Amino acid sequence: MNTVHTDTEALDYIPAGYKAAGIYAGIKKSSGKKDMMMLCSDIAATGAGVFTKNKMRAAPVKISASRVPSAAIRAIVVNSGNANACTGTKGMDDANAMTSKAATELGLSAEQLLVCSTGHIGDPLPMDVINKGIETLANEISSNGFPNACEAILTTDTRRKCAAAEVSLNGTPVRIFGMCKGAGMIEPNMATMLGFVVTDAGLAPDDAQALLAESTQKSFNRISVDGDQSTNDTVLLLANGVSGKRLTPDHPDWQQVKDAVMAVCHSLAVQIVKDGEGAKKFVTVQVRGAKSASEADTAARAVANSMLVKTSWAGKSANWGRIADAIGYCGVDVDPNKLCISYDGLPACMNGCIAATSEDDLSAIIQNPAFTIEINLQLGPGEADIYTCECTEEYVRINVE
Amino acid sequence: MNTVHTDTEALDYIPAGYKAAGIYAGIKKSSGKKDMMMLCSDIAATGAGVFTKNKMRAAPVKISASRVPSAAIRAIVVNSGNANACTGTKGMDDANAMTSKAATELGLSAEQLLVCSTGHIGDPLPMDVINKGIETLANEISSNGFPNACEAILTTDTRRKCAAAEVSLNGTPVRIFGMCKGAGMIEPNMATMLGFVVTDAGLAPDDAQALLAESTQKSFNRISVDGDQSTNDTVLLLANGVSGKRLTPDHPDWQQVKDAVMAVCHSLAVQIVKDGEGAKKFVTVQVRGAKSASEADTAARAVANSMLVKTSWAGKSANWGRIADAIGYCGVDVDPNKLCISYDGLPACMNGCIAATSEDDLSAIIQNPAFTIEINLQLGPGEADIYTCECTEEYVRINVE
Repeated sequence: MNTVHTDTEALDYIPAGYKAAGIYAGIKKSSGKKDMMMLCSDIAATGAGVFTKNKMRAAPVKISASRVPSAAIRAIVVNSGNANACTGTKGMDDANAMTSKAATELGLSAEQLLVCSTGHIGDPLPMDVINKGIETLANEISSNGFPNACEAILTTDTRRKCAAAEVSLNGTPVRIFGMCKGAGMIEPNMATMLGFVVTDAGLAPDDAQALLAESTQKSFNRISVDGDQSTNDTVLLLANGVSGKRLTPDHPDWQQVKDAVMAVCHSLAVQIVKDGEGAKKFVTVQVRGAKSASEADTAARAVANSMLVKTSWAGKSANWGRIADAIGYCGVDVDPNKLCISYDGLPACMNGCIAATSEDDLSAIIQNPAFTIEINLQLGPGEADIYTCECTEEYVRINVE
Repeated sequence: MNTVHTDTEALDYIPAGYKAAGIYAGIKKSSGKKDMMMLCSDIAATGAGVFTKNKMRAAPVKISASRVPSAAIRAIVVNSGNANACTGTKGMDDANAMTSKAATELGLSAEQLLVCSTGHIGDPLPMDVINKGIETLANEISSNGFPNACEAILTTDTRRKCAAAEVSLNGTPVRIFGMCKGAGMIEPNMATMLGFVVTDAGLAPDDAQALLAESTQKSFNRISVDGDQSTNDTVLLLANGVSGKRLTPDHPDWQQVKDAVMAVCHSLAVQIVKDGEGAKKFVTVQVRGAKSASEADTAARAVANSMLVKTSWAGKSANWGRIADAIGYCGVDVDPNKLCISYDGLPACMNGCIAATSEDDLSAIIQNPAFTIEINLQLGPGEADIYTCECTEEYVRINVE
């Protein structure tokens, strides 16, 4: 149903009434890569946000979280290269100042701005560089600025990540465009997954918030690269209604738009895993038959985050015993005599014991660029899927350097 | 107070009334390394044990756990190269058969035997090889067999690990000797930490069990290499009383023996961390000021298990932000404005913000072979120490291969 366009193709589906810019302001001095982004709606848009649960949440997270959901958001200002986290009162002042400066440049009020930062933790923001950057961004924003904007939010990502979908509602096109950054939810100088989704559909603040929360739960919250959660993780949704289509959950077209938003978020999440640091394999961990959905989730994450399991996927042997081990220590109810593990449908472990499948057949599966591990606990209705990647020496090298 | 002897020196302190043997039976065909061990007390000894909490606990764990604490233990039989885990009914039959066979060869009853296995999960034990191995072990046990015994329990360990202490109680020497295996609580073919401690002190079963539980809690349970817990982790204590000294907790010499057992366990635990796969650094993570001891433990483990933190220790930069991040997501109470982090006493983060210490000074510390990270949450009396190591590319290489 929902064709999701990615990369260059996605850039042909920018929703109506949005402008963006991405520039090198001078934060990433060592690489000279783009480090500031601005994304604006031509008119007041509904803004919704989902934020990290990390208790050390960064200053910009606190500011943005205090401003959504809202019906009056006009723009998002972002810097990469510095997380503005663990920066105390000055950090809060700086994050506030970023929104005030952007508001001044754009002729808005600060409360209409959202702000994100990503990069090294603990260093104060270079506010002179940031302020000049905001001036440049405000001058450069245009409907053609999205390719640069997608680039300017990246850190250790090896490529930009964007996705778009278009739905036709009685002949009226409604578009959803998203961009994100994140390579293992981590980077040498510290974490962050950022995601920005914009649509020209019109949504009420609470509806937008609920839609974003559900979409995030089923996409960005289903991926795991190394189990570390950042101080800055943020996903924001803007909905400006410029398409002329205003939608509420009881509207017959709601499901179509919801599905499209979900599909865009899902595509972005998958792109993050595929760009996982040092990773070459896309692995789906499916847990079935857990006592509850929550236990299924715990089990799937334990498997996806186990260094022993992740390194085995980079090797030559399927090594299902490491999966059994992770299931055993993660705290969920498990009957050792009922555990089943299969690789792309081939049983490796049946009712707690080795299955008849040849080790060669199992090993061949983990050589594929994508495969699915199904773990059935045979204890209840709980199900969960987690998308992840293998762990390679390159991951460690990237994070050591 | 307690001089702990290690390696060759420790082998000069074997307690009275114990014999051991270590052989190559034929389980580790690819390497040809020793793969079976037997450890015997000349007379019935008190036996105590501490076992993995993994719900997929292996068959030998179930058997040994059902037989301790006991006053009638005579021997322990161990194989490496195969974990006898996830092996169902046959696994239980095989583990039972190992103790029966050893009992027959030694002229004992099966209930006097304990059993451990370590190695690959899921494969059935080669019982013909095991049975012949047990015959050879029973023939070869001697008071000189300890060096071979220490070797035969190893898997990916790069060196044998043993420790011993002697205390003089009114002129009577009482000895404690321990050996263990484990390199990151992990190995290419799957986990296990095994520890065996023997003493010629006489201890009642319940006292021995309590002593071992406390010693394990303060030693083996304080180390963390990768956060994975094995299906087979086991620590066993035998106390045969051959020294002539029988001790109860109300005896004036109890504390001395207790301290010596603790010291031996601590030395073995440290040896495991120092032999962590691919590791070259010994890191002590101290959490202070947590709301409770349990929260301190959670926080210290989160830091010790964070891949981002562990890889940073292998690099050139102290990167305390990654520690703050781990503290933030681990679920314990934290006030971002109170968090302090220091490296060997040098402050890196003070009350949530970067400290004045130069990055060069902090970086110099993490180049040392051993250093201590102190994290103070300033919220309460909770304290915990965890011993761990850095994560290198070599760790991944070992676990991929």
